[in-house]
Amino acid sequence: MTADRSSPTISEIGEFQLIARIDKVLSGRTGGAKPAGVTEPAECPDNALILGIGDDAAVIRPVPGMDLALTCDVLVAGRHFVPHWMDARATGRRAMTVNLSDIAAMGARPAHVLVSLGLPGSMPVTEVEELYRGFLEALEGTGAAVIGGNISGSGLDWFCDITLTGWIHPGCALTRAGAGPGDAILVTGSPGRSLAGLECLRWMLGKEDPDLSDPDPIRFGSHAGIEDARRRFVETLAGFVRSRPWVAGLVDAYFAPTARLDAGGRLSSWNGEAVREGSAPPVTAMLDISDGLPGDLLHICEQSGLRAELDAALFPEDALLDHASQALDRARRDWSLLPSDDYELLFTCRVEHAGRVRRRLEAETGLAVTEIGRMLPDGGGKADPITVRGIPPGSTPPSGWDHFR
Amino acid sequence: MTADRSSPTISEIGEFQLIARIDKVLSGRTGGAKPAGVTEPAECPDNALILGIGDDAAVIRPVPGMDLALTCDVLVAGRHFVPHWMDARATGRRAMTVNLSDIAAMGARPAHVLVSLGLPGSMPVTEVEELYRGFLEALEGTGAAVIGGNISGSGLDWFCDITLTGWIHPGCALTRAGAGPGDAILVTGSPGRSLAGLECLRWMLGKEDPDLSDPDPIRFGSHAGIEDARRRFVETLAGFVRSRPWVAGLVDAYFAPTARLDAGGRLSSWNGEAVREGSAPPVTAMLDISDGLPGDLLHICEQSGLRAELDAALFPEDALLDHASQALDRARRDWSLLPSDDYELLFTCRVEHAGRVRRRLEAETGLAVTEIGRMLPDGGGKADPITVRGIPPGSTPPSGWDHFR
Repeated sequence: MTADRSSPTISEIGEFQLIARIDKVLSGRTGGAKPAGVTEPAECPDNALILGIGDDAAVIRPVPGMDLALTCDVLVAGRHFVPHWMDARATGRRAMTVNLSDIAAMGARPAHVLVSLGLPGSMPVTEVEELYRGFLEALEGTGAAVIGGNISGSGLDWFCDITLTGWIHPGCALTRAGAGPGDAILVTGSPGRSLAGLECLRWMLGKEDPDLSDPDPIRFGSHAGIEDARRRFVETLAGFVRSRPWVAGLVDAYFAPTARLDAGGRLSSWNGEAVREGSAPPVTAMLDISDGLPGDLLHICEQSGLRAELDAALFPEDALLDHASQALDRARRDWSLLPSDDYELLFTCRVEHAGRVRRRLEAETGLAVTEIGRMLPDGGGKADPITVRGIPPGSTPPSGWDHFR
Repeated sequence: MTADRSSPTISEIGEFQLIARIDKVLSGRTGGAKPAGVTEPAECPDNALILGIGDDAAVIRPVPGMDLALTCDVLVAGRHFVPHWMDARATGRRAMTVNLSDIAAMGARPAHVLVSLGLPGSMPVTEVEELYRGFLEALEGTGAAVIGGNISGSGLDWFCDITLTGWIHPGCALTRAGAGPGDAILVTGSPGRSLAGLECLRWMLGKEDPDLSDPDPIRFGSHAGIEDARRRFVETLAGFVRSRPWVAGLVDAYFAPTARLDAGGRLSSWNGEAVREGSAPPVTAMLDISDGLPGDLLHICEQSGLRAELDAALFPEDALLDHASQALDRARRDWSLLPSDDYELLFTCRVEHAGRVRRRLEAETGLAVTEIGRMLPDGGGKADPITVRGIPPGSTPPSGWDHFR
């Protein structure tokens, strides 16, 4: 069967409509049937699915009393990272962090890692070793281990797909669907720093070495070419940061984000404590913001059947973003509202617990935690799903990152 | 840190040496440490690793009494499949089968699927839907379900990485390390058909339409160009098969292999029965042959510390391979000894059980099962790890497929 010529392309409908169409193909086919003809081990569970497609991770229950979250995330050179800006170790650390962040966003504890690589034959072996050292750096102290994987050939636009599992107490997975009207919206850290860092890099390269701005590694023709370009980049950045030290913190947020495993694990365990004490769990929904704060919040709105009101005046103070705002002549809030690879956690909390949860999380993790808005009834679909008080309506598109648009 | 200029490239050392170097980086870092600062749920198991890197799948034990195998495998357009030869549904079916085969090779029962796709924005949405229909066709009757995944942008050399889990009884995973000296070597089906099918296609295209021989989809410039090429390919093949009907069976072996889940599951469960009855398990090692029969058998030799002797005269009779041998003027055994994407199972069996296991497996699965050789003591590393009686020494390289050579 050949494809229908009248079909729209992926770019035309975008990532989220594409996922909806895939869901339709899969609907009613999410398994459970026994394998025909296979001797059935009596104690084998079915596929024991607790949570399927559409959250940060899927969740299965291998046995009563223990859930396992499963997630995968792929990074492609020239699309999700720029090989002539970031060395192999930093790339490995970042690729693993992106996946750890999905496990953090469920409130789970990382356990097992499978790494699937498509690498060009021209890559030096030491770079592959550095990539794995980066994986291990990101995994340090998490309890998780690389247990398998797959290596294949590719072009210079090589890729890295990581599958991660995480243990979680039954019923304690923090999904996108649990928020209630009136719940407070809280966020860790300072969303927007990563985008500001990226824009600082573009600003720098525009001034100093426009040739390095193009993220596509293929233009350098070979690995040696990419390595030469990276040396130039590192020198340029070092010179640039000498006269603007504030740039370093922003660029670091872009190159070396941290997965909020500690925060995610604590929020999930506090919910578990509340349930054991017979009270309602304080945290109602959670995800990580890798596609932009409003874009990701939109998933909570849709899956919880609510809308959200943010207040720009409540956004965390951030001296680094203020510096960047002056230097790049750009409204400081933009960075927090546009797609920015921050990997901070955004969660909703019953309003009566919000102050206590915020203070306890700050005290125990050392992170800044800020209440930035409220969940509201959806108003019959007439109101915008997300409004931001304190910025002119329509001045910042509250859209998330789409891999195809 | 930048890469060492004096480092060899991946192509220079090849896939298997690369994996050995990665293992070294990972050694002693396979986890188990508790996450720093995370409230530790007392009943969380550690990462409970039973079997790590180096087999068809990794195996974990979430709880006593139940093991879970985990594997992933990536297919890249133009490298592992040719988009202008195979439509999206067939590609999806094949990609899933490749992964199911790894689960079959452990003797496990498929359970959960994560799909990571890198797709070009120019791909028609109907093709993505067809890809998923192909996944579902391969999963039909296995009991496994797609529970999550990830979609990202890519070039026309798009890719598909699938992670699969499978349930297995504790201690029943059939690894590569258990073979003993004197064990019989058995194989399902007729290895070599897939390579013969591929060579028939190349032979046909050489005669009829050399332009379509190049596997690289990028040369067609767009998805519409690939679709046009595929139409030409389908017409050419239909005409070619009309006068040579035997080609159809071989091409089918290449395009639409089957994962031997039923056979793998039965062998594993017979081992379980034997253990419960207090006798030694009959099947000692197993893997799937996707990298060529000798190349994969070499993994069993290395991990079991043995060598192997095959007898070409024992290889299964195959009228289709005989036809191809005449038409292409090539020795019939070559196809069974060179890398061929057959996804048949190769296993070793205590010699006193070999006849019974072979007959029972044939009777219960309907597959041909053939005893093709013996495992032998390694002779202190002086002898070749694999010898094939009945072919001149050195006439067929017993090497496996390497993604980088």
